[in-house]
Amino acid sequence: MTIFSKIIAGEIPSYKIAENDKFFAFLDIFPLVEGHVLIVPKTEVDKFFDVPDEYLAEILLFAKPIARAIESAIPCNRCGISVVGLEVPHAHLHLMPVNTADDLNFTRGKLKLSPDQLKAVQEKILSKL
Amino acid sequence: MTIFSKIIAGEIPSYKIAENDKFFAFLDIFPLVEGHVLIVPKTEVDKFFDVPDEYLAEILLFAKPIARAIESAIPCNRCGISVVGLEVPHAHLHLMPVNTADDLNFTRGKLKLSPDQLKAVQEKILSKL
Repeated sequence: MTIFSKIIAGEIPSYKIAENDKFFAFLDIFPLVEGHVLIVPKTEVDKFFDVPDEYLAEILLFAKPIARAIESAIPCNRCGISVVGLEVPHAHLHLMPVNTADDLNFTRGKLKLSPDQLKAVQEKILSKL
Repeated sequence: MTIFSKIIAGEIPSYKIAENDKFFAFLDIFPLVEGHVLIVPKTEVDKFFDVPDEYLAEILLFAKPIARAIESAIPCNRCGISVVGLEVPHAHLHLMPVNTADDLNFTRGKLKLSPDQLKAVQEKILSKL
């Protein structure tokens, strides 16, 4: 069971943003920028393009209102997307408010946010959802 | 008319990879890595999440065989995705073969490939498509 499946099952707590039958969205606790959200399909597949087609067809529609909420909650030019997948072998998509290309740069240091700060980000995004 | 619309219309030449009624895929001529492909919806919308839902539902399905061809043609761990959108005001999605997170880092210098080198990359990807 991947760490993401444990989060989806509630075995590991998370700052949940949204959920439906196919996807679970929550805050990345090691965010590149404030408002960094992960969207994980509820199926344990390593590579993003190996996720079944019905998930590929729906993930961006699931992401859209979350992206809009991020754009409303966090000052940014727009919400960007990254799919990398070199760390956790469970496909996932990153949504990140972007002001400069460096906001999507996974080689730079992650933010260290306290639980209170993460909770505040979660509430800001949820208030716009 | 955006530069991407001109490429789609054939007014600006490109190293085309694939096309259907909704999308046009071609090599980024300033690639971060060899095998860097852009997928552009055939509708002039600036922000990715403002692209109509039927495009959002289909873009990853359109991208999937291209991603698989990139993975076959270019030695890599997997094909990654980025959506940034700070440069050209016409929504687009980047597909890039990824070995390290730095391969998706838009703050680093772009490769300078000659027309012959780009043509060779195009042919390698097309041969796997």
